[in-house]
Amino acid sequence: MDTRGKVSGDAPPYAAMRVEVVRLPEGRTDGDEVAVEEPLEIRIDETPIAVTMRTPGHDEELALGFLISEGVSPLRASLPSDLAANTVDVEVADWDPERLKRNFYTTSSCGVCGKGALEAVAVEAPPVASELRVPAQLVAGLPDRLRGAQATFAVTGGLHATGLFDGAGELLCLREDVGRHNAMDKVVGWAFSAGRLPLAEAILCVSGRLSFELVQKAAVAGCPILAGVGAPSSLAVDLAADRRLTLCGFVRGGRVNVYSEPWRVT
Amino acid sequence: MDTRGKVSGDAPPYAAMRVEVVRLPEGRTDGDEVAVEEPLEIRIDETPIAVTMRTPGHDEELALGFLISEGVSPLRASLPSDLAANTVDVEVADWDPERLKRNFYTTSSCGVCGKGALEAVAVEAPPVASELRVPAQLVAGLPDRLRGAQATFAVTGGLHATGLFDGAGELLCLREDVGRHNAMDKVVGWAFSAGRLPLAEAILCVSGRLSFELVQKAAVAGCPILAGVGAPSSLAVDLAADRRLTLCGFVRGGRVNVYSEPWRVT
Repeated sequence: MDTRGKVSGDAPPYAAMRVEVVRLPEGRTDGDEVAVEEPLEIRIDETPIAVTMRTPGHDEELALGFLISEGVSPLRASLPSDLAANTVDVEVADWDPERLKRNFYTTSSCGVCGKGALEAVAVEAPPVASELRVPAQLVAGLPDRLRGAQATFAVTGGLHATGLFDGAGELLCLREDVGRHNAMDKVVGWAFSAGRLPLAEAILCVSGRLSFELVQKAAVAGCPILAGVGAPSSLAVDLAADRRLTLCGFVRGGRVNVYSEPWRVT
Repeated sequence: MDTRGKVSGDAPPYAAMRVEVVRLPEGRTDGDEVAVEEPLEIRIDETPIAVTMRTPGHDEELALGFLISEGVSPLRASLPSDLAANTVDVEVADWDPERLKRNFYTTSSCGVCGKGALEAVAVEAPPVASELRVPAQLVAGLPDRLRGAQATFAVTGGLHATGLFDGAGELLCLREDVGRHNAMDKVVGWAFSAGRLPLAEAILCVSGRLSFELVQKAAVAGCPILAGVGAPSSLAVDLAADRRLTLCGFVRGGRVNVYSEPWRVT
């Protein structure tokens, strides 16, 4: 069994990263391993084709498999000498840029590789200025409230949810979607239409993992606290710290891991 | 609490859909509700900006929230009279197409809305011709083998995995990633580099839910059986049936739900 890859011929450079966490209710500061998330730009003959948020390692395989799925026949993929550039170049026999373009759809992200990611987002989202503070017990109870209100999940078992809660833990808006980012977008769109942006006194809670993009969306909406049932990625933690947003992961069983700005959870 | 939306002013048109399923080990044919997944094209002043795979309903909110996250200030969003067109148009005060373009990244999908989705994929992936058959018990055991081999998940709790298994259930390749599609792309890229495409005698198993895109990738790789721990979407079931691929969902606790081509699971 090969878990290391025939292409790179080596283990991933780093798939996990150690970050600082405050574990509640104890309030103990501890270390925690999070999955690394970084952008990768896939290029064909120097032309950028796509950027994906990925866990570093096996990047050549990722580029090859991605293009094969799109009907392109690759020859080989290679990494630049500077791995931190987060790019991979693929040689192909021939390809039609216009046809490939039609086969992609876009989703939101930074559009900038490597170090530029946080800076690009910072332009859109000033640091969250809210002084909102909420009890740890309130945050710990949000996922149950979310699940309790999820109508379609109960039937299908297949939908992500985002809930918007006020500072007292009351559910203001719930949206479900097969895409985790879509559920968040729907809630932010609802808040916009209701004249509630920025969400300075509110909490966003998601049913799954905490990615870079979800933190980005919460930061742009001006929301001071983002909580999730699942694990955060490394870039989610970085961005939350940079934008002074309180990021709470693994919210389950009465417990909360706070990865940034823990003073908001009392 | 508003779970219905201030913009649409109504409940989603349909968030779940009934499909036929064979429940193993009993072999009983039954009905099952799956989450609806369909493409939505977001337009600004008639210009297509992005296509996202989403659950229908609250589409105006989705478009508004999506653009707000990208730093665009929308005025209002509106649906066409034909909801089946799967488009939403957003009015904005002003916007810079070039700047917006830089803020997106692309990921793989059909690039075609509505009915065209299955046809577009069919071009890239001929129907799977494999005669592979495997015992239900073997499929039921794959998630445990996958999880057992997931090195980074154990540490971070935050990674999706895709495993490639042979017809005897032996793990050939495992890849983990924060993105579920990336993990699948890495495995397909590995198989390409190892000269193993098409995967006519193999099984792909994923740690999460079964989306349209994952079925698309498996179909293009020529893999006859795709199994997952989570729920399938409606479009995943449609595409699997169309490409004659055996789709197994909710593979847990010794049970398997087969949504298409059940004859391959004996």
